[in-house]
Amino acid sequence: MPSEFELIRRYFVREGGASAIGDDCALLAAPTGLALAVTTDTLAEGTHFLAGTDARRLGHKSLAVNLSDLAAMGADPRWFLLAIALPEADEAWLRAFAAGMFALADAHRIELVGGDTTRGPRTITITAIGTLPPGYALRRDAAAAGEDLWLSGATGEAALGLAHLRGRVTLPAAAAAASIARLEAPEPRVALGRKLRGIAAAAIDVSDGLLADIGHIAAQSKVAAEVDAEALPRAPALAACPDRALADECILGGGDDYELAFTAPAAKRGEVEDAGRAAGVAVTRIGRIVAGPAAVRVLAGGKPVEAVPRGFDHFR
Amino acid sequence: MPSEFELIRRYFVREGGASAIGDDCALLAAPTGLALAVTTDTLAEGTHFLAGTDARRLGHKSLAVNLSDLAAMGADPRWFLLAIALPEADEAWLRAFAAGMFALADAHRIELVGGDTTRGPRTITITAIGTLPPGYALRRDAAAAGEDLWLSGATGEAALGLAHLRGRVTLPAAAAAASIARLEAPEPRVALGRKLRGIAAAAIDVSDGLLADIGHIAAQSKVAAEVDAEALPRAPALAACPDRALADECILGGGDDYELAFTAPAAKRGEVEDAGRAAGVAVTRIGRIVAGPAAVRVLAGGKPVEAVPRGFDHFR
Repeated sequence: MPSEFELIRRYFVREGGASAIGDDCALLAAPTGLALAVTTDTLAEGTHFLAGTDARRLGHKSLAVNLSDLAAMGADPRWFLLAIALPEADEAWLRAFAAGMFALADAHRIELVGGDTTRGPRTITITAIGTLPPGYALRRDAAAAGEDLWLSGATGEAALGLAHLRGRVTLPAAAAAASIARLEAPEPRVALGRKLRGIAAAAIDVSDGLLADIGHIAAQSKVAAEVDAEALPRAPALAACPDRALADECILGGGDDYELAFTAPAAKRGEVEDAGRAAGVAVTRIGRIVAGPAAVRVLAGGKPVEAVPRGFDHFR
Repeated sequence: MPSEFELIRRYFVREGGASAIGDDCALLAAPTGLALAVTTDTLAEGTHFLAGTDARRLGHKSLAVNLSDLAAMGADPRWFLLAIALPEADEAWLRAFAAGMFALADAHRIELVGGDTTRGPRTITITAIGTLPPGYALRRDAAAAGEDLWLSGATGEAALGLAHLRGRVTLPAAAAAASIARLEAPEPRVALGRKLRGIAAAAIDVSDGLLADIGHIAAQSKVAAEVDAEALPRAPALAACPDRALADECILGGGDDYELAFTAPAAKRGEVEDAGRAAGVAVTRIGRIVAGPAAVRVLAGGKPVEAVPRGFDHFR
């Protein structure tokens, strides 16, 4: 069996990459005049992904969830570190995992600069570092009454894919494939986040569930958010779901989509739409921010509706 | 049971701490004119610590192993992120873990700026970020023939403590307590690393085992290292060990001590000793760097000896 050090050399050290891989720390030149945005996310088998998940997709997703956090702040991806625990040194698995991870890294020009490879229950923790001009970060606490509430793409596919895999629903083949791909290989909205710098006010990535994540913006900005049920985009897989109540639950409460929910002044509607076009992703106005105690309300026909699913919480 | 968000608020958000905890990323002001040193290390239950390990000590150690990597580069600790997976939300455990972690963080003035709390097999991954003047990092690839080889403190106690816990040896009570404390709550040599900037050439922290880690310096610097067996310091617990062969194995091959092994030009012996005094840790000249293919040799009476234990490798 190859050693820990050999595994690192074979699968994670690339020609022309960071010279410091293999040292105690990665050494990075601090970018002059820029702020750093740093995030860390763990994916644990059984909690965040099912045993047997395709390794290439898992490599993609492990980095994608961190890129999504950078996107939600409007940061430019720069460097990342990979801490990976594996029950055994399965080289075919590692090769596929690395291929998926590096394909996404290359697409977003983020460089692996260090890490830790160890034995343990399959767990992947990536720490990603981005940069952005000081004062331009999209924060959760920056929403203000009167702003529009926006959503990139559409939510619900990832949760629907998980429901299908768990046998809670049986989707048509095309809808199943699309939903599972979304669950296992989400596309972080990095380009959109960058374009929204100076346009959007508050932003968050939708990982816990649409209403739960909008709730984080409301709580930290001390405002209320109103979501128009009729305005919510519905991906084709959701439209194909035979269980309408499940589809609605996935759209409002399902996590793992990694879209961006954000607010922007009404005067900037054109700029938001331009940003979406430039980033190649649809943006939809789904509601508004209003004054009042922190809350999220779903409106249908302009009236509040009940039946609001809770988002995902690992300890509930 | 408290929610994931409530757990973070209760145990990991401190008054006056980083404002960005709770946002998608931590926002850090990049330090002007300094390089960044970044490291990540995972501790997994069953691999790096035994089930039932004291939570306070585990909180200390989880951060200590990362501070040790910063120390080995000569960096000043600045910020860290904590990704923690737990099988259940055990509040007494979390309170003790946080107390141990923050006590060490405060001693080294490093600030928790973000993280991820999730459900899964007990696994802790910390990413630490330090700063240092560009060009002053102590790297593994900087050793040159003719330099002295140095060691801070003494190695072997951590491995001896583990041998005692596993029943491989029965130590006198005082030696057992000292060894187990060393295993579970190592003191990172941060002050020494900082003082060695501009004095030492190459450095590494001893986590895999003394000879294995010196071997990393030899391999990356393309030199040979000679270790004088008689020069190796022997901590009191090792001297009290009834099994002399085991004691030697722990000193040469045991990991987890988190001492610094480093090289420096012979002209700088006085400066190295001053650095040790200023940092409050003994430094011992244990050998030398010589030209030749990368290798580590142990000498006794000036002659090479066999029986060189291998260091720790998670996949061997």
